[in-house]
Amino acid sequence: MNRRMILHTVGRLLQIEAILLLLPLLTALLYAEWNGAAAFLATIAIAAGIGTLFTLIGKNRDRTMFAREGFIIVALAWIFMSAIGALPFVFSREIPSFIDAFFETVSGFTTTGASILTDVEAMSHGLLFWRSFTHWVGGMGVLVFIMAIFPSESGRSIHIMRAEMPGPIVGKIVPKLRDTAKILYLMYVAMTAVLVVLLLFGGMSLFESVIHAFGTAGTGGFGVRADSIGSYSPYIQWVITVFMLLFGINFNLYYLILIGRVRSALKSSELWCYLGIVGLSVTAVSFNIASLCETAAESVRSAAFQVSSIITTTGYATADFNAWPSFSKTLLVLLMFVGACSGSTGGGLKISRIMLLFKAIRRDVKRMLHPRSVSVVKLEGKAVDESIILGSTVYFAVYVVIFFVILLLLSLEPFDFESIFTATAACFNNIGPGLGAVGPTASFAAFSAPAKLLLSAAMLLGRLEIFPLLVAFSPSTWTKK
Amino acid sequence: MNRRMILHTVGRLLQIEAILLLLPLLTALLYAEWNGAAAFLATIAIAAGIGTLFTLIGKNRDRTMFAREGFIIVALAWIFMSAIGALPFVFSREIPSFIDAFFETVSGFTTTGASILTDVEAMSHGLLFWRSFTHWVGGMGVLVFIMAIFPSESGRSIHIMRAEMPGPIVGKIVPKLRDTAKILYLMYVAMTAVLVVLLLFGGMSLFESVIHAFGTAGTGGFGVRADSIGSYSPYIQWVITVFMLLFGINFNLYYLILIGRVRSALKSSELWCYLGIVGLSVTAVSFNIASLCETAAESVRSAAFQVSSIITTTGYATADFNAWPSFSKTLLVLLMFVGACSGSTGGGLKISRIMLLFKAIRRDVKRMLHPRSVSVVKLEGKAVDESIILGSTVYFAVYVVIFFVILLLLSLEPFDFESIFTATAACFNNIGPGLGAVGPTASFAAFSAPAKLLLSAAMLLGRLEIFPLLVAFSPSTWTKK
Repeated sequence: MNRRMILHTVGRLLQIEAILLLLPLLTALLYAEWNGAAAFLATIAIAAGIGTLFTLIGKNRDRTMFAREGFIIVALAWIFMSAIGALPFVFSREIPSFIDAFFETVSGFTTTGASILTDVEAMSHGLLFWRSFTHWVGGMGVLVFIMAIFPSESGRSIHIMRAEMPGPIVGKIVPKLRDTAKILYLMYVAMTAVLVVLLLFGGMSLFESVIHAFGTAGTGGFGVRADSIGSYSPYIQWVITVFMLLFGINFNLYYLILIGRVRSALKSSELWCYLGIVGLSVTAVSFNIASLCETAAESVRSAAFQVSSIITTTGYATADFNAWPSFSKTLLVLLMFVGACSGSTGGGLKISRIMLLFKAIRRDVKRMLHPRSVSVVKLEGKAVDESIILGSTVYFAVYVVIFFVILLLLSLEPFDFESIFTATAACFNNIGPGLGAVGPTASFAAFSAPAKLLLSAAMLLGRLEIFPLLVAFSPSTWTKK
Repeated sequence: MNRRMILHTVGRLLQIEAILLLLPLLTALLYAEWNGAAAFLATIAIAAGIGTLFTLIGKNRDRTMFAREGFIIVALAWIFMSAIGALPFVFSREIPSFIDAFFETVSGFTTTGASILTDVEAMSHGLLFWRSFTHWVGGMGVLVFIMAIFPSESGRSIHIMRAEMPGPIVGKIVPKLRDTAKILYLMYVAMTAVLVVLLLFGGMSLFESVIHAFGTAGTGGFGVRADSIGSYSPYIQWVITVFMLLFGINFNLYYLILIGRVRSALKSSELWCYLGIVGLSVTAVSFNIASLCETAAESVRSAAFQVSSIITTTGYATADFNAWPSFSKTLLVLLMFVGACSGSTGGGLKISRIMLLFKAIRRDVKRMLHPRSVSVVKLEGKAVDESIILGSTVYFAVYVVIFFVILLLLSLEPFDFESIFTATAACFNNIGPGLGAVGPTASFAAFSAPAKLLLSAAMLLGRLEIFPLLVAFSPSTWTKK
């Protein structure tokens, strides 16, 4: 194991975090929030200090990296980054408890959007900015970001990219990894900028436009109002609906469109499957909630917003879907697990993984009937390697097992089954709100400190797709030679 | 496809059902219940008539059978058997609605034990006997029973046995299939008889002893009292606890003990895993419910009973666990999915399948770290074929998918999430009671007719482990040559 290399990369990441913290510092200064500014300054000093220490101790010419190192770097980087990212909340006393602040920061970086805040409207601008900025940074991946700007770090960093990017298959857009990372970030920045402009058109202030663009682009869900997006105009709600869906699409398709290969992009079966699920769900929910809404337009808008918000794992809300009929609620719970497309900023199981599972099931039924038949599972027109199929089915199994372990531990809290089940689902799939006691109008404040740590772990497990943390915390990783 | 062969076997099964119906007829006559006796007589005539018609139409020298025919025979046999088995309830007017009676009979044969009865104590002896007898017949499998007594039917009936017996791997105890079926049934009869005697010792009447022995042996759960086993003595409760656990063990182990290979039987890792889960769960629940019980003995007894009842998928209850703390309730919900050992009369996913999943997960994590490593998954000391591992993970995936489809459809009913979730889990895993509106003191009477049919399908899917029904109802099975 190349321990120095791991330490070095984590150190580099903390240095980057110090730089990223300059933006909320600037915001705090602009709004003359001196208390917040001081908190950011102190955090920047700590991040830069620890980061530099780590890079120095970890200085090493040996850049050898295997899958194991990739997993460990990603796991440790996300934990350190969240722990340090929580400090401004604690130093400013806006979230005095470190565990609460850690929960909020993990929720930010993992693009979950679950909050322990009971009064978000009382927060200062600087900290609201930082909270939403973590969504934007975490959405595309922080280590991918490092790769885009530090070419020298990327020894064999495909392992890092594999560990940090969601979905069953991680492909490079262009041969060089560094260029892939750069292209991904450029498209991400451009789409976020377009969204900011469209929100400004709708009469939103610049500050709120940026906050909601961050929350939408990262499929996070943090906002600035107690009722999320509920009190904004229908125009704003539709813009956010469309952009939530756009950020739930595989970014490789945007690259194909960018280089003129529109037809190849539109051939993606994952895209059509995703749009199909969204279309069917919106239709079903629209009818199911029609009696609760004043006009048909309102029921369609409300259904489209909530379905898009949940399937892309964003977690914004324009309605209290906790008060919806059982069918719509159950459908939303199912969509929590489905998630968005692989290679997007969304969480959950990912559409392509579910497609692979269905294809594997169909193949297996065929095999049971004709034991000697040979058939290949295809996705997007290409034969899928057997190891990826096995990996997907095993991922699904370990996903379910971990879900139930978290659920069981969380049931030690004094909440009903619906609340505990959906709190687990909403954190593990990086959505944010659930049903019952954690519905869109409620918060996670009432959970105990151990439960908040457990849910923080759930959010990290969900965002990093389990294995990096499993490897980093498995004793055999550290004891065996 | 050998359609005649399928028809012939289903016909033979209905003839057997006519013979089995003689027992409840006798019971009705003994208790001078003329109304019930007439209902049984009419049903016997119908079963024998249709059965004979089918065997005659299906008369065929060609006994060729493949996996597909095995699946279809099992699926159709169970549906026909349940439809005809429901008639005595309808004819006697004790359950006037055919859909209710069908639900109750499917619940019986699949050893679920979910009931639409709101006053079980008002039922006649003959029908109570038939209701519980279906548990006993369904527990070991009706087609296995046919194989035991009609040697001539078993052309290549390993396919039937594979389709009807639960668990990932179906093994023959002895080389000849007919002898295997016979040995299984003999052990089953002997253990049931011992249980009847032990219950008689506890002061239970002969009728009730037989009823509860049927319900325990088949891991079904139908009883004769509104409070299930709650009002019986601690001795009776412990006897049923131990026997529920015994009937949740792979019957192959009893055969090993019978032929003197006790040491091989005790080597079974599935057995120890099963006992380990039971031991840990009983301990955890005992502590969790201690404050609700008067003595420590009571809390251990209550925990042991409910844990054993749920993990073996029996569904008897001595306490209203609906009123237990969230942790115990969630643990019981998890055990609903775990289920008993493969090759037992219990339902659920089965311990050995879950062990295989865990081993596949561990192997996959290892493979991700050392891509070139080769490792074999072993179960009970033997290497497991890759196709069985893939089959198990795919089974798990299809199981989860079907679970959520049923859950979504059931959510159209006006119940809360907890009730709908546990109603689905309790029927699909063949347990019986769930939580909330379908808790151990409630019934399934309040569901609509379509929901009852849906839950009947869920019970059949769970008992037959999905694929037989999937194959029988897949259009491609019937259209392609």
